Parts: sequence; structure tokens; C-alpha cells
Amino acid sequence: MNRLKNIFEPKSVAVIGASATNGTVGNAIFSNILQSNFQGSVYPVNPKYNNVMSVRAYKDVVSVPEIVDLAVICIPNKEVENIIKQCAEKGIKGIVVITAGFKEIGEAGKKIEDEIIEIANKNNIALIGPNVLGIINTQKDISLNANFALKMPRSGKVAIISQSGAIGVAALDYAHQHDLGISKFISIGNKAVIDESDVLEYLIDDDETKIITIYAEDIRHPANFFEMAKKANAKQKPIIIIKTGRSVRGAIATHSHTGALSSSDTAYDSLFAQCGVIRVETLAQLFENAKGFTSLVKPKGNRIAIVTNGGGMGVIATDAAERNGLTMTTFEPETLEALKTKMPPTANIHNPVDIIGDADAQRLNDALSEIAKDKNVDAVIVSILPTSETDMNSIATNLCDFAKANPNLPILANLMSLEAEPAFEELLNKASIPNFDFPETDIRVLATMIKYYNWIDQPPIEITKFEVNKNQVQEVIETIKKEKRIHLSEPESYKILEAYGIKAVDYRVAIDLDKTIIAANEIGYPVVLKIISPDIIHKIDVGGVKINLKDENDLKKAFNEIVESIKNKKSDAKIQGFLIQKYFTAKGIEIIVGANLIQGFGSLIMFGLGGTFVELFKDVAFRLAPLTKQDALNMIMETKGYQILKGYRGQSSYNIEGIVDYLLRLSQLVTDFPEIKEIDMNPVKVLEDGFGIVVMDAKAILIEEQKIPLL
Amino acid sequence: MNRLKNIFEPKSVAVIGASATNGTVGNAIFSNILQSNFQGSVYPVNPKYNNVMSVRAYKDVVSVPEIVDLAVICIPNKEVENIIKQCAEKGIKGIVVITAGFKEIGEAGKKIEDEIIEIANKNNIALIGPNVLGIINTQKDISLNANFALKMPRSGKVAIISQSGAIGVAALDYAHQHDLGISKFISIGNKAVIDESDVLEYLIDDDETKIITIYAEDIRHPANFFEMAKKANAKQKPIIIIKTGRSVRGAIATHSHTGALSSSDTAYDSLFAQCGVIRVETLAQLFENAKGFTSLVKPKGNRIAIVTNGGGMGVIATDAAERNGLTMTTFEPETLEALKTKMPPTANIHNPVDIIGDADAQRLNDALSEIAKDKNVDAVIVSILPTSETDMNSIATNLCDFAKANPNLPILANLMSLEAEPAFEELLNKASIPNFDFPETDIRVLATMIKYYNWIDQPPIEITKFEVNKNQVQEVIETIKKEKRIHLSEPESYKILEAYGIKAVDYRVAIDLDKTIIAANEIGYPVVLKIISPDIIHKIDVGGVKINLKDENDLKKAFNEIVESIKNKKSDAKIQGFLIQKYFTAKGIEIIVGANLIQGFGSLIMFGLGGTFVELFKDVAFRLAPLTKQDALNMIMETKGYQILKGYRGQSSYNIEGIVDYLLRLSQLVTDFPEIKEIDMNPVKVLEDGFGIVVMDAKAILIEEQKIPLL
Repeated sequence: MNRLKNIFEPKSVAVIGASATNGTVGNAIFSNILQSNFQGSVYPVNPKYNNVMSVRAYKDVVSVPEIVDLAVICIPNKEVENIIKQCAEKGIKGIVVITAGFKEIGEAGKKIEDEIIEIANKNNIALIGPNVLGIINTQKDISLNANFALKMPRSGKVAIISQSGAIGVAALDYAHQHDLGISKFISIGNKAVIDESDVLEYLIDDDETKIITIYAEDIRHPANFFEMAKKANAKQKPIIIIKTGRSVRGAIATHSHTGALSSSDTAYDSLFAQCGVIRVETLAQLFENAKGFTSLVKPKGNRIAIVTNGGGMGVIATDAAERNGLTMTTFEPETLEALKTKMPPTANIHNPVDIIGDADAQRLNDALSEIAKDKNVDAVIVSILPTSETDMNSIATNLCDFAKANPNLPILANLMSLEAEPAFEELLNKASIPNFDFPETDIRVLATMIKYYNWIDQPPIEITKFEVNKNQVQEVIETIKKEKRIHLSEPESYKILEAYGIKAVDYRVAIDLDKTIIAANEIGYPVVLKIISPDIIHKIDVGGVKINLKDENDLKKAFNEIVESIKNKKSDAKIQGFLIQKYFTAKGIEIIVGANLIQGFGSLIMFGLGGTFVELFKDVAFRLAPLTKQDALNMIMETKGYQILKGYRGQSSYNIEGIVDYLLRLSQLVTDFPEIKEIDMNPVKVLEDGFGIVVMDAKAILIEEQKIPLL
Repeated sequence: MNRLKNIFEPKSVAVIGASATNGTVGNAIFSNILQSNFQGSVYPVNPKYNNVMSVRAYKDVVSVPEIVDLAVICIPNKEVENIIKQCAEKGIKGIVVITAGFKEIGEAGKKIEDEIIEIANKNNIALIGPNVLGIINTQKDISLNANFALKMPRSGKVAIISQSGAIGVAALDYAHQHDLGISKFISIGNKAVIDESDVLEYLIDDDETKIITIYAEDIRHPANFFEMAKKANAKQKPIIIIKTGRSVRGAIATHSHTGALSSSDTAYDSLFAQCGVIRVETLAQLFENAKGFTSLVKPKGNRIAIVTNGGGMGVIATDAAERNGLTMTTFEPETLEALKTKMPPTANIHNPVDIIGDADAQRLNDALSEIAKDKNVDAVIVSILPTSETDMNSIATNLCDFAKANPNLPILANLMSLEAEPAFEELLNKASIPNFDFPETDIRVLATMIKYYNWIDQPPIEITKFEVNKNQVQEVIETIKKEKRIHLSEPESYKILEAYGIKAVDYRVAIDLDKTIIAANEIGYPVVLKIISPDIIHKIDVGGVKINLKDENDLKKAFNEIVESIKNKKSDAKIQGFLIQKYFTAKGIEIIVGANLIQGFGSLIMFGLGGTFVELFKDVAFRLAPLTKQDALNMIMETKGYQILKGYRGQSSYNIEGIVDYLLRLSQLVTDFPEIKEIDMNPVKVLEDGFGIVVMDAKAILIEEQKIPLL
């Protein structure tokens, strides 16, 4: 049994702190439960009263003469800990702590909260809060409104999880004004015990809930959330989230390009993208999308038909379709023929269909029934304005009948009326036909639905496992740890990459000029010469790199210059040797590939084209490791640089499969070794199709010893 | 007197086609006028009736026993022409033709419409329509509702111009539901005589109208529109437009990069950007912005403060501020001190200020009055959720008082309530405090307002006039016309550019190998050799270009190869000679500059960085000629490439002033010579600061002879 069952489906509720005084939280909650037609028993607990609102009160929860499934606590913060102990004693397994004044007020509050967490966990109590509005379950055989601010909403398919009480209020306000039915509402506040992932787990199995909306300022356990989202996908329950704090750029200490370009918000973007969760920017989008999904009809594709009684709406809808990547479908000749027969001569029978201003409900029906038969139509948007001929109620009634007759065709409406909140909206809502103010909203919502259903329809993809040399990486890491450093030298970075099948350009390491010359002869001129030192992170800045050395003379000169420059600029640097590399002139394109460990999320893998692409246009893509093959491919395709890789305007194409392979190998490396904090391969040269991909420069950093998570 | 005065402010109106039969257009219009409390006299004209709705009817308009200012015509389309003749005879100067069935139904309809236009113009009649809903003037001493679909809206500051009747209905629907006051409404339909620019001219001088919204599918006379928009700016009346048809890519025949990247929609974008008109994508944005402007308070800057009673709303608003380029202000120490004293300890006194859930109207006032004093605050957003302590009506009342006491501080609200359409919304609307569903809308609207006021506050800039050699261009053009061609050769293109002070890389023209060698010696190796032929537009495709020729041998070989290749690939091409050009290796950056004549708009000037910037990222900017210096600068700054030009990450900066100069010179050239259809300079090499800018390749095309407009 899911442990949130006690919270959402209690047979008995104790309101600890229930009060007879108007305007108190304890009064509001108790009266809300009484008024919500709760199907169980509710007990006021308050030593000050004999009864509250005519209901016999108890001096403490232990005295309640029945098993209590859920305790709602609304007493001063200092008393909460003690009361929770009593609840535990009573064997209560569900608690909602309404009271604020814990972690959010600072150290003192956090201390009490930690105590509470301990008691709850020890006694296996599902505890919501503290610092919450409360919860709502509209399910008929429960009918529980245990919160202090909100009236009972209309029952429906949408669940709301809100980290903020304020946004919870706004959400219910919107739902009320737009007649959006709610299944469950839960304010999760400080998330001391129960967090969004736990609530998701419950809602996924909740038959009443079909669509889940979340307001979150953070996700407590990204990995749990990811697992739950995948389960929701399996049940085709869309999750729509607004995760705020984009503007709070996660301050990630960083030494690499990859690090500089990623933020904790990038990790969230990746997390959501990798589990099909729909992230939106605004509250309006959150609820519009929720409403859109209420029909739960899966579009077959993205070819839409628009039917309107006013040309202008068709034009607006067409623009919006293009903006949102939908296709205005072309009708079959039979459809056109039928429409021609049934519509007046002034009508426009091509998509967007204009049945013109004097159309009544019958004409709309005639048009829709032909359009529904057309195999090129994946979804229909009906945009009808009030005219002297339009009786919106009969249009809505007909539309509902039409929807019933065509259960597999997604229908979105945009019926307008000069009268506020007319009856037809209720009709449409009951028939689960989403109705919005403007056709552009229908289109935007439909585009989101199509994207979602495409996502969940993907076949499941296993994570590729390559044969690798883990020992080689282990050795490198141990050496570094032994030397109490965190920066890998360039050859060390190559070594761990090579162990996982990622190739560097031909190189040698030498410790003096003579060995350097031998190495250069082995590799063949021209060569690159670089200093190797764990103390030098930005080699170029200290004159530690010389390129395009054509012969031994060049090499000698470069060697001496480097030695001289380091002596001047970084005399204390411990020199491990010199790196001699092939100076690579083969035609190809430069990319950047990296990984960056984000607290709580794991490693964020980055891909982008090099140079100005990455620097100026931030034309990069991220996904969290471990990557699937599809993830890697999506990353590449997400960038504009993909156009170049696949062969731009008749130019050469590049080995995209090879890049995918490298991304997957990198993903496996950082997954196997979570002590790798950052890896930056920049540049990586991708040769034309049929040739290889070689890393030209690389750096890597380990997390500091004390931060290595237990494996 | 503006000729639309007869339309909007008539003393007497004749409804020709007024009918006593319910459900007819003639009935709806006449009854709407009667019911609108029109302050003049209205005469039904219909030979079928003695009276209509108890008002004495006339058999024809000539019989009306008074001067008629406005005739509203709603009779079958075939009779309209005749009736307009009668109106002209009667001396009527204002006509609204409601009737449809003209240009929009094809050739036959267009013919009648043309006749109507002729009569109207000959008799100086301001004619609206045909194919319209009608007009509305809410002004108290007029109070005219002469349309067949809409009820009289609440009077207010917003005028609506709609090309589509349907969108007109939607607009009034939105206005009604959101209590947005309307000054004038006009449906302009086919725009046979009066178009949007004419209506603008009237509205600019209309004291009732403060904000103008437009739905347009095209702009009849872009130049007129531009002039009117500038006049509206002078009066600080914002114009907000939704111009549809973005998806209908204007099919512009083109031979150049510039052409390929521009569309008629780009011309619209440029037009609006150059005259401060606010273009929006969606109907929701159109009206939200209109509502935002109703306060008409100009923000001093973009530093905003947010006051809320729920932390979540503050977070959402902060994200939205960043997304919209607004700055969350930092309060002065005195403000923080005062807030600390006045707010409870659990409140957040830093921006976004959270006065917490138990705040009443007084606490909100206390916070606002301190924030208003802070010199770092340019605008305030007040986001209040319903809690047990919030009496929205007293909050709204206080907010209105606060707004009155701070007339120079823009205030946007976001007061929510679980009750639909409560009284407080009316209070806010009366006090012109825009109130939206979510704080994100307040922020988006405020950002638009700030952008607008910044635009109109710019000092007026004259068009720079350079000393140029017009004759030289004239000569080139005459030669080409004489030879009945339209393509300029590369040297011809250089010649017209040079006449306007735009320099090409050092080049010579030679007619044989000997002269080619002499020319190369003059210029100095390495050189580029190109074929010159009016018949060869894409030189590279026929092997007509050879670069990096290092010496005479290279040159000879290249010469022969070109001759051979042309013989094979384009033997019929008329060869005018060979172009010898310096092969330019100096360090610098390549840009693309061009111009493309767009029917009705004049020349669209393009700027972008060369290579993948322009090709893949479409990182280009457009403005219509003639450009101001600010226009040219804005173009450059609009591109991402600007980051490179001004010196990206410590790299060299480039001569931006020089690019501005070239853009202005090109603008002057295409303005002086409207027979130039396209000019494409690609690439233009911009050297590092202090060095020059040189055109490396150029082509130009004239419009075909018969299309040259009269000068």
C-alpha cells in the first residue's frame, strides 16, 4: 500500500489545533473538512474546547476513541515536535503539518524540523510539510478538503502539486475560473519527509488522476523523480511542470567550457527532456496544457484542420500553426467535393475552412463530419465567433456529440461569446473538449500534446555498454589521489578517455629535449609541443603551447621558448614533461564534448560545434548521464550545428554515428567514475565521413577527496 | 477637418437598407443605433416601409429632410453602386458599406468595387468598407453603435481597427470580458477608399483615444502608415498591431543572398521597428498590451520592484523579469531599514518583497509607500493572493489611492480572487491600474511599455546625406538599359557603389591575357581572376573564378582554364573581359550587406556577418531605406555577430562606425535610384579597427524596364 493512502484516503482525520475562533487556521481547516462532505469522521483535538462547531473535541490525539489515519497539525511551531511524538504513539501513519516556522526561518527552525524528520522516519510516518496549505481529495467516496485557504474545487482529472502555498492558491483560482476539474491538490511546502517524487508515485496509481501539474522550486531527488516520470509515461499520464528559479543561475564552480555553459537549471532542463516531462515557463501555460490534455485523445500526427466562421481567425490560426511546427493539412479531393456540395458558395472549403458568419450549428456539423472522414486530418480546431446565427449552446451541444462520435480525433475549441462564462463552456468541459480564448492557444496546446505523445510512443532504449578498460582509469585516478591533486594532466586525461575508446590525436610524452626530438620524429612533422604540469591549467596563458612546428629547428626553438616562458611566468610549477602531438591539418570540423557533475543530478554531458558556435551562439545541448543512443542523437540534432554535420548545402557530411559513439562512451566513463567532476574535450576534430574523430585537447578534474560519494 | 469626422461624429445618420425584419443586418444596425443612445438623428431608408421601429422611414436617401453626415449601407451588393451615386447627389461625405460580395468574391465583385471607388474619390467621400461590421464611437456626446454584431462596449481609451470582422468580434468580446474600455471601433474590410493609415490619422487627433490596436492582414500604404505612426509617437499614443500572414512567405523572386533571406514579412517587421509600432504575435498579447498602456505612466527605467503576499509569486515574477530583460531593483539601505521596522520579522524585505500571507491592506500600503520613495524603483508590480486576511476590495481601494498619490510611478497589479469577476477589478480598471491573471503577464507587458517609451524618447535623427557622384551611377544604369539587360557585371556593380563612397578591393579590368598580366603586376600578387559577363550570374558554377594566384604562371594557367571552362559550360555567354583583383589575406572579418526592393515598401537593407552566421543562423538584420544612423546601428546591434564586431572575449574589435557609414551610403544609393532591385555585397571584409572596409564581391540587378516607377 502506498503510504500516502493515509493522507489522501483517510477514514478518520484528527485536526490537532482545531479551533472555534473565526479567522484562525485551526478554525478554517476544521470547518473546511466539515463542509467538504468528508465521508469519514473528523475529530477536533484541542484541550481548550469541549467541542468545536458542535463536534465533540478531545484534549489530545491519544484520547481519540478510534484509529486515526490522518492528523492535520495546526498548532504553534514549538509544540509540533511533541505532538508528532503523540501521533507516533497513537500509531498515526499520515500527518500534514500546516504550521510554518521551521527550516524556512533559519537554523533554529531547521533544528526542530530535523527532529521531526527523525521521528517520522523512525515511525514510518508519511509526513507532509511543514509550512503548507493542506491537501484536497475531490474523489466522491472521500471528499476531503483539509486546507485553510481553498474551497473544494470541482472534481476532475488534474492533480496539482505545489511547493508554494501561494501558487497553490493561484492554481485553484485559475481552475475555478476556467472550470478545470481537480482530482487531488497537495501543497508540499518544506518537503521534510514527503517530496514531489513520493506524491508522483501515489498519483501514478491514482485512477482519478490523469494529468499531473507541478509547481516546484527544486526537485528533491532527481533520480527518484526520473523513475517516477518514466512510470507516469508508461501509464500515459502527462506531467507538466513549472520549475522556477531559472534566473538564479546555479553558482557552479567550474574550470571548463562545459562547466561555464551549464547551470543547475540546465540539469533540470535535461532531466525533464530525458523523461518526457513537459516544462513550461508560465503559470498560464501550465494550466492551459493541463486543460488541453483533459481530452486525453492522442493525435495520430501533426496535420491539423481548422474550421471557423470568420476568415481572420483562420489566418491567425495558420500563423500560429507554423510558429508551433504544426502542418495545415491538405484535404483529399473527396473532402473538398463534399464540402463544396454542403457549404454555401462563399465559404472557403480549403483549410482553414471558413463556413462564414451566417453558419448555424448544422452547417458546422456538416463541415466537421466531412473533415473527420479525411485521412489527412490528425486533429481539428473549431473556432466560432458569435454572430446573429450562432447559438453557442447548440454549437457546443453538437460539438460534444461530434466528439463522442469521433473518439479518436482530438478536437480543440475556441468558442467565443460576448456573455461572460456561459453555459456552453460547461458543456464543453463535461465532454472534455478544451476550449480557449483564442485559436493560437488551441494550437500551442495541441503542439505540446503532439510532442508529448511522440515522446511516450518511442520504443524503450537500453543504455549501451561498451567493453572498456576500467583498471586503466582506476590507476590514473589513484595516482592523482595519492599526489593529493585534482587536476589531470593532458596525457592523464587522454589515458582515461582512451581506456573508454575515445581516441586522442597521435601524441608522445617526453621529459627532455632529446626525447622530444625522438618523439617528434616518430610522429612526423609538423608537430605541436605542450608543457605538462598539474599546476598549469591554462597552458596557453603561460606560453606553454607551440603549434605547427615544421622541423627540428622549430621544435628546438619552441622547446626553449616554453621552458623560458614557464620559468618567468610560473616558476613554481611542477613540470612533468612535454607533450608532442601531431599538428593536425586534415579537413574536418571541430566540436566540443564535455561532462560536468551537477550535485544531485549526476553528470551533465555537453555537445556543441566548436569556435563561435559554442562561444557566441551557445549552440550546445545537454543531457544527463547515462545517455541512451537516442539521447545522444537528440543532443546533436538539437544544435544548429547539426545542419553542418549532416552536410550543409551540398558540403561534406560528417560522422554523426561516431560522435554518438563518443558521447555514449563519455557517458559510461563518468557514470562508472562519479569522482570525475569535469571533463572537457575541446576541440575534438571530426573528419569527413569515413575518417575518424580525434580529441585534440582534453582536461579533466576530480572532485575533492572528501566530496566523493560512497559507491 | 479630418474627413473621418463625418463617419465617427455625425449629427445625422441614414441607414440605407434599415429593416423591420428581425435577424436581418439592416434590422440589427438600425436597432443598435437606436439603442446606443445616439445623440444625433437616425433615419431609416427603405422604400418597403413607412417606418422602421416606429421611426419614420424614407424611400430614398435624397428624400431625407436634413443634411446627412453618414450613410450606412446594408443592401444587396448589386444595388450599392447606384445608392452611392444617390448619396453623392445628396452631398453625403461619409459612407460605411456593410454589404459584402465585392473584391473578395473575385473579378465581378472587384469591378463594382472599382466603380464605387471612383464615385467616392470624385465626390470626396470618406468610404469605409465594403464588407465590414461597422463602426462604434463610445464618446458620450456622440454614442454611436453603427454595426450589426456588437453591443456597445464600455467607453475608454483604446481604439480598435480591424481588417477582419471576425477578429473585430473577438476583440470586443475580449474587451467586454476584461472590462477594457473602448474609444472607437472600426472594421475596415476591403479598404476600398479608407485604409488603416487614414483611420490612424483621425485617431491621432482624437482626444478620446490614447492607445490604438490594429488587426491587419496587410498595410495598404506602408509610407503613409509610417508617417502616421511617427505622428502617433509625437503624441505618445502607442500603436499595437497584429499583422497576420507571417506564414504566407511573400514569394519574392530573388537572385541574391539578401533576397533569399528577406520576405514581405521582413519588410513589415522593419517598417514597424522603424516607427516604434509594437508588433505582437497573438491576440492575447494585443489586448494585454493595450490594457497595460491604459495607465499611460512612463517608467523612468527598467528597474522593477515586486510586492507579493506569497513567496512563489515573487519567484515566478523574478524569472519572468529576467526573461523579459527587466532588472529586479536593489533597494536603498533606508528603504530596507523602513521596511524592517514596518513589516513583521518573517517578511522578506528584499526585492521581491514578501509581506506574507497574513498581510492586510494596511501592511501592503506600508510596504508600497516605502518602496515608492526609493529612487531605484522605476515600476512596481503588486501580486496579491486571496488569504483569510486579504480583503481584495480594500486592497484594491488602497492601491487606487496609492496610484493617485504616485502619478509618475507605473503600477501593475495581479490581484487574484476565487470569486469570478469581483468588484475590485472594476475599481482597478477605473483607476487605470492594469490587472492580469499572473505576475508573468504584468512583467511582459511592462517590458513592452518600457521598450515603447524608450523608443519615443529617442531624439529625432535626420537622414545623413553624403556627397556622392549620382552621374556615375546614372551612366552605368543607362548603359545597361540601352543594352536591354538587368544584371550589372561585377565592375559595373563596383562602379555604382564607388560613386556612393563604398570601396571595392583593388581591381582592374582587362580584355586579354597580356592586359591581365599587366593588371596583375600593377596590383601585385597574389591575385584573383574572374570572368566578366552579363550572361553569367553565378561565376563559380561555370569555373569563372580562380583565387590565390601567386605569380604570372599561376595567372596564365588560371586564365586559360577559365576560358576553356566557359567555352565548355557557357559558350554562348558574351564575355566583357576579366576582372583582376587583389587576393586579400589581411586579417579581418567578413560581413554581408545588401538591399532588396520590396513592392510598396522601398528597399530593404540587410546586414549580417558572413559565412555560417548568415547561412545557418540567419543572423541578419533588416531595415527599410532610408536609414537613420540609429537604424543602421540598431541593425548591427541586433545581430549576434555584433558581439564579435565589438571585440569578443578580448579579441580585436572592428570598425562598426565604418559599417554604419556603408549601410547609410547604400541606403542613399537605393533611395536615389529606385530602379535598383537588388544589390548584394558578399563578402565585405572588415579589417581590424583603424583599417578599412572593402567589398570583395558584388552584384546588382535593376528592375525590369516596364516596372520602373515614375520619379
